[in-house]
Amino acid sequence: MASHRFNAQFTDNVINAMGPNTSPRIRQVMASLIRHVHDFARENEITVDEWMEGVKLLNWAGQMSDEKRNEGQLVCDVLGLESLVDEITFTLADEAKDAPTATAILGPFFRADTPYRQNGADIAVTKPKEGGEMVFMHGSVIDFKTKQPLAGADVEVWQASTNGLYEQQDPDQAEHNLRGKFKTDDEGRYYFYCLRPTPYPIPNDGPSGKLLTLMDRHPFRPAHIHILATKEGYRPLTTQIFDRQDKYLDNDSVFAVKESLIVDFVPRKEDPNASLELQYDVKLVADSA
Amino acid sequence: MASHRFNAQFTDNVINAMGPNTSPRIRQVMASLIRHVHDFARENEITVDEWMEGVKLLNWAGQMSDEKRNEGQLVCDVLGLESLVDEITFTLADEAKDAPTATAILGPFFRADTPYRQNGADIAVTKPKEGGEMVFMHGSVIDFKTKQPLAGADVEVWQASTNGLYEQQDPDQAEHNLRGKFKTDDEGRYYFYCLRPTPYPIPNDGPSGKLLTLMDRHPFRPAHIHILATKEGYRPLTTQIFDRQDKYLDNDSVFAVKESLIVDFVPRKEDPNASLELQYDVKLVADSA
Repeated sequence: MASHRFNAQFTDNVINAMGPNTSPRIRQVMASLIRHVHDFARENEITVDEWMEGVKLLNWAGQMSDEKRNEGQLVCDVLGLESLVDEITFTLADEAKDAPTATAILGPFFRADTPYRQNGADIAVTKPKEGGEMVFMHGSVIDFKTKQPLAGADVEVWQASTNGLYEQQDPDQAEHNLRGKFKTDDEGRYYFYCLRPTPYPIPNDGPSGKLLTLMDRHPFRPAHIHILATKEGYRPLTTQIFDRQDKYLDNDSVFAVKESLIVDFVPRKEDPNASLELQYDVKLVADSA
Repeated sequence: MASHRFNAQFTDNVINAMGPNTSPRIRQVMASLIRHVHDFARENEITVDEWMEGVKLLNWAGQMSDEKRNEGQLVCDVLGLESLVDEITFTLADEAKDAPTATAILGPFFRADTPYRQNGADIAVTKPKEGGEMVFMHGSVIDFKTKQPLAGADVEVWQASTNGLYEQQDPDQAEHNLRGKFKTDDEGRYYFYCLRPTPYPIPNDGPSGKLLTLMDRHPFRPAHIHILATKEGYRPLTTQIFDRQDKYLDNDSVFAVKESLIVDFVPRKEDPNASLELQYDVKLVADSA
């Protein structure tokens, strides 16, 4: 490890400064973090000027962040970190129980204050100025183990409009446009109208956009719908479903695509409100399972 | 490397997303950063909740930062990163030339707009309410190679007051108190009055303070005076000098102490303005050396 020409004791000194009242988890995580950060700096011989560029970029991320935007999260996303910790969290859950629906990242555009809507509602309150195919999305929430439908579960969805913007990024969209929370009926069903999702670029006016430019990467995410499903007594499920037709499936700018999350939009007949249909069942794992 | 049970291709996929127009240095640094960040997450099986705590902490650092405070820098400092990149930068310079004065971190309390003062001035414009021994500090700026004194060099100094606060942190101190920029005279000399430095805690109301608490570490820095010396045609020198009497010399909260930067304050006689004296020569390396 110490095959470098810098002070060989330095990293151990920093780690050993931790006091006796450090919790075991913090001690493990911080020691590992310090070791990796120091190894990174030494292996690349990071100079003071380069490090200061990194500090400015991190401070900039915080300064751009507020209730409606989490730029620190987006910086992690373009480095693949959110998708990786999602995989880690899912793997740990998977080893503890049987495999539920694959998970995906929450992303920075989730809002905790999304309102309930009635089943059958249209979440496209503000219609797109250009494009926009309407979809009837429906399915059931099911107990993963018993296969029984779950009444009274919450299915929360959110998606960007065809201009690539979520409502909180776009003054022309109504508050809570293209998002809603649905309670499953007595037969465990949820259903609503939404847009067929379209690919969009993540915002490129901040440090994550700067990193993408530096790395000569495009900012696009493949078309997707976010889902957060919850029910008391069950583990919450955060996921995204992706359109099989999308050209960015293989190179998502935040690396969130998994094969099991790819879905097919099919033609829908005799519905004046939608030309496409998507059936998607959500499986929840009981806390006690 | 891939002795883990997560997607073995994931990290390479993220690294390989970099496009052909990435500069060689960015490609090297970002690939290494991505690999270390991912290894850190996998080795510690960082969960989504733990990662989100980290994101909040980083955003918080940016939100606290402004022209007078650089909290992102301070977070790096408590992890030893600024001192490490300083050592790396110094080592690279050292290998290219002979060894100049050892360097130390700039720290987050430097101000780019520090005013010039006349040699002989007293930088303690606002006298401390408690304590405070006056020091006559003097020395020469010298060409490292020729040993000749350098006239017209700038020696900039800054220090905290006895309450542990730099002037920009303390509304009770005059603007630019305890900082000043001095031009060396025809014989290369600089001289001024200042306080004997005292140990102080780094600010603990932000994420760096939270990290210190989590790691059960004290926030104190050993007593020191910051120096930045510049002259056209010479490489700038950033350093700190430490009081040999200080009890925190062995456990600086930002790990900046080096043996060669430890100095002795000695009694000064027959000067009504100072009871102590510090002689310190600064050696600069010519750009062309």
